[in-house]
Amino acid sequence: MRLTAFTDFGLRALMRMATAPDRSFSTRELASEFSLSRNHLTKIMASLAQAGIIVTRRGGGGGATLARPADQISLGEVVRVLEAGQALVECFAAGGGQCTVVGCCRLKARLRKAEAAFLAELDRSTLASIALPPVSANPLTQS
Amino acid sequence: MRLTAFTDFGLRALMRMATAPDRSFSTRELASEFSLSRNHLTKIMASLAQAGIIVTRRGGGGGATLARPADQISLGEVVRVLEAGQALVECFAAGGGQCTVVGCCRLKARLRKAEAAFLAELDRSTLASIALPPVSANPLTQS
Repeated sequence: MRLTAFTDFGLRALMRMATAPDRSFSTRELASEFSLSRNHLTKIMASLAQAGIIVTRRGGGGGATLARPADQISLGEVVRVLEAGQALVECFAAGGGQCTVVGCCRLKARLRKAEAAFLAELDRSTLASIALPPVSANPLTQS
Repeated sequence: MRLTAFTDFGLRALMRMATAPDRSFSTRELASEFSLSRNHLTKIMASLAQAGIIVTRRGGGGGATLARPADQISLGEVVRVLEAGQALVECFAAGGGQCTVVGCCRLKARLRKAEAAFLAELDRSTLASIALPPVSANPLTQS
């Protein structure tokens, strides 16, 4: 079972933003801290902004901030947004795939319940609970 | 969140084998029914055999059968076997990946709990509960 890099990297950025929810973060700064592609992170931030998880402002003094307090953004919400369009198995995709047992499959409902259990578990935590220590207090991010 | 095609296809084969747990199925027959690559399915069956979920016999009259009654093989067990080596996120992989927040990450434990919840939900069902109808009773597999 895999989450996309899109989700993984988005969660890393949000962990940092949750450290200082009142200040703006540039994509450049976040990409640099986590050694991520700035282009990839720009797409992730756009997706988070569109979903109302972050707010972005252009120009000098611009950047991204959390749209709500970190303790009001669950990990389940974030993962649902970033994994949107990722089908757990072929037949969950928009087109439905080529599986020959559609119509008599009793597995599908069980996989949906398992996926729901995964997300429900993530709904129990918020970004506040995974906020990273401030950069100055984290020896691993100092160089 | 995605499962691999390896897992998806393995579950399809097991759904058919659970229909008639007393008879042997050839990889050729199963690959044909589900329009799967025979080569791919051969690898899947080898993995299931190695894990003790199916038993395979070579030669005439050979093939694969479930190693235990279908109601004693949980979907969680099957998915654990077929997804072995698939890391939910980069840092779950054997090498640990390149994430810069290893050491102060509070997300990892939450993702592990969510993954465990996914598998626990699948542990509640067995192959017996997802057995396909016999081929003769399934209009979708008749041509």
